[in-house]
Amino acid sequence: MKVDGRHIRSIWLEPDGITVSAIDQRRLPHHFVIAELATADAAADAIRSMLVRGAPLIGATAAYGMALAMRGDASDAAIDRAYNMLIATRPTAINLKWALEEMRAMLRPLSPPDRAAAAYSRAAEIAEEDVAINRGIGENGLALIEAILAKKPPGERVNVLTHCNAGWLATVDWGTATAPIYLAHDRGHPVHVWVDETRPRNQGASLTAWELGHHGVAHTVIPDNTGGHLMQHGMVDLVIVGTDRVTASGDVCNKIGTYLKALAAHDNGVPFYVALPSPTIDFSVDDGLREIPIEQRGAEEVTDMTGLTADGRIETIRIVPVGSPVANYGFDVTPARLVTGLITERGVLKPDRASLAAAFPERIAAAAE
Amino acid sequence: MKVDGRHIRSIWLEPDGITVSAIDQRRLPHHFVIAELATADAAADAIRSMLVRGAPLIGATAAYGMALAMRGDASDAAIDRAYNMLIATRPTAINLKWALEEMRAMLRPLSPPDRAAAAYSRAAEIAEEDVAINRGIGENGLALIEAILAKKPPGERVNVLTHCNAGWLATVDWGTATAPIYLAHDRGHPVHVWVDETRPRNQGASLTAWELGHHGVAHTVIPDNTGGHLMQHGMVDLVIVGTDRVTASGDVCNKIGTYLKALAAHDNGVPFYVALPSPTIDFSVDDGLREIPIEQRGAEEVTDMTGLTADGRIETIRIVPVGSPVANYGFDVTPARLVTGLITERGVLKPDRASLAAAFPERIAAAAE
Repeated sequence: MKVDGRHIRSIWLEPDGITVSAIDQRRLPHHFVIAELATADAAADAIRSMLVRGAPLIGATAAYGMALAMRGDASDAAIDRAYNMLIATRPTAINLKWALEEMRAMLRPLSPPDRAAAAYSRAAEIAEEDVAINRGIGENGLALIEAILAKKPPGERVNVLTHCNAGWLATVDWGTATAPIYLAHDRGHPVHVWVDETRPRNQGASLTAWELGHHGVAHTVIPDNTGGHLMQHGMVDLVIVGTDRVTASGDVCNKIGTYLKALAAHDNGVPFYVALPSPTIDFSVDDGLREIPIEQRGAEEVTDMTGLTADGRIETIRIVPVGSPVANYGFDVTPARLVTGLITERGVLKPDRASLAAAFPERIAAAAE
Repeated sequence: MKVDGRHIRSIWLEPDGITVSAIDQRRLPHHFVIAELATADAAADAIRSMLVRGAPLIGATAAYGMALAMRGDASDAAIDRAYNMLIATRPTAINLKWALEEMRAMLRPLSPPDRAAAAYSRAAEIAEEDVAINRGIGENGLALIEAILAKKPPGERVNVLTHCNAGWLATVDWGTATAPIYLAHDRGHPVHVWVDETRPRNQGASLTAWELGHHGVAHTVIPDNTGGHLMQHGMVDLVIVGTDRVTASGDVCNKIGTYLKALAAHDNGVPFYVALPSPTIDFSVDDGLREIPIEQRGAEEVTDMTGLTADGRIETIRIVPVGSPVANYGFDVTPARLVTGLITERGVLKPDRASLAAAFPERIAAAAE
């Protein structure tokens, strides 16, 4: 998508064919800084320090990390060393594991002199596959937006509410929840996005607002408390969020607070969609509420806030009284009964066991093994 | 309630019988500063600048403001001047108007030399009446907490979730939503409070957490996104919030985000209570969603955040990208169907027209005139 009028992705290979560049997302939204990743160590650091974040982008970064590792030493031992270093950066990230296993399996049969070139090539493919999947999500979601638009008086815009950042910054390009929005915008449709701030890490206010603004999409940042009121007053036409994991029965695990927006959508007859690449569906899990453990994150994400001072410095301040305990649950589970549909690259699916099984018979078979 | 082991109110008359002191709530939670209000101008400034906030405390401050005004010049013109100055500080505050009209009506028939003493006396009564009402709310709410406690295994605590600050800082003492909690704590019952941060003004994280912590009540600050997840997992026994206005049919207008917590409580079978002094019921309004206009507040409450730096300075930072628009709706309306009960000084009432009319026949008669 666009930044300062120029098309850019979240990660790309420089013209030297060696160096990998990525947007330093820790510096957003106040500073736009590009980091050059010249070694596998740098790629691992980028994942660990959250310079890059978002499951698909982490996968692509890890794949490029394997390629960078093969440049100096392309031995079997070097493959294992790079794999072990990279997998340890975010042990629970499923895309990371998938990308690293893919790279390792591809590299092992090759003779060492061929490995670096093959690794760069496969990493580029992994990045392109993500772009293609997201573009497919976009096409399928676009139809939903266009159907709403067709029912509106001319000139009225479609209001989408989103939570957290499931935007192009979390992927290689397009994003998941944002893909239909960018596609609608690029086709000239009037679309406006309510951007949940998304406490405690503020990925909505800091990342989603930044990327929508730079691409030129009309948007408004709102506190997480606001969406219910907007839906009560007919100011939201549909909700589109991303997800970290969807169960075989259609339950949706996503950033904490998603469930509250789903309840409000349900109470006000607003369609609630979840956009995802189909590998996000985990056929080994059924009841999201009972089976998905919810990670607790560091207290400082709740107690502290980082931003830009009036004189242009980045400063961290404490916003909770010293001595008050905090809790920081990273995710919640939205039951399938509150979800209107799952927007995937294979189509918009109903969030129930039968529909998901019918759409992915090969994966049901694999899960049963 | 207690601060640093000492019992204190949000506003009080100093032993000199003249000066009024109040906690400077703009400095909380990082600094505990007491402001002396020696003139009516100072009282007006305190309301206008939000040194004091919360409907009952604003009313008490305005009443003392009238008393301060009577010290120098107790003429009829001085009564009107003070009234006009004080009412202009927060034109939409109902308690402010009520307290000022009460004071003016009481002062006018008196001869000027008697007015200052009478004004101090009536202002003190208004403060005491607020304390008594909140204490009554506390007693009625305590019974609800004790009923839950009675069903729990010994040693288990009652978990209350609250939103915003309806604590003693918003009143003269006890608070409304917090009154049952303080009373339960003081009786030795194990009670723990989930404190919603309450974006965008963070009154939960900054004020409710501060006052609960100083009184010694176990509490945990959570992002506003968290409550639904906690309720899904049985970690909330009841919700108690305050309110700015309750309609004749039991709809509840309160800080933005209250509606989302009510939806989650309803979805999980968690009782959702609203604590209020009965004058908060507005019998002239019926359908809260259609009839109550929702104030939009300044963008800077969403874009900026103020807190304490590591080196002890108070700093304001920007947390939204420059150029991203924001919306800041102050309140939302929770439909009566989501409210379990209204905890008032007259008892716990069902949120419907018949129950409210039966409890307040004199006000129904007045509203019909």
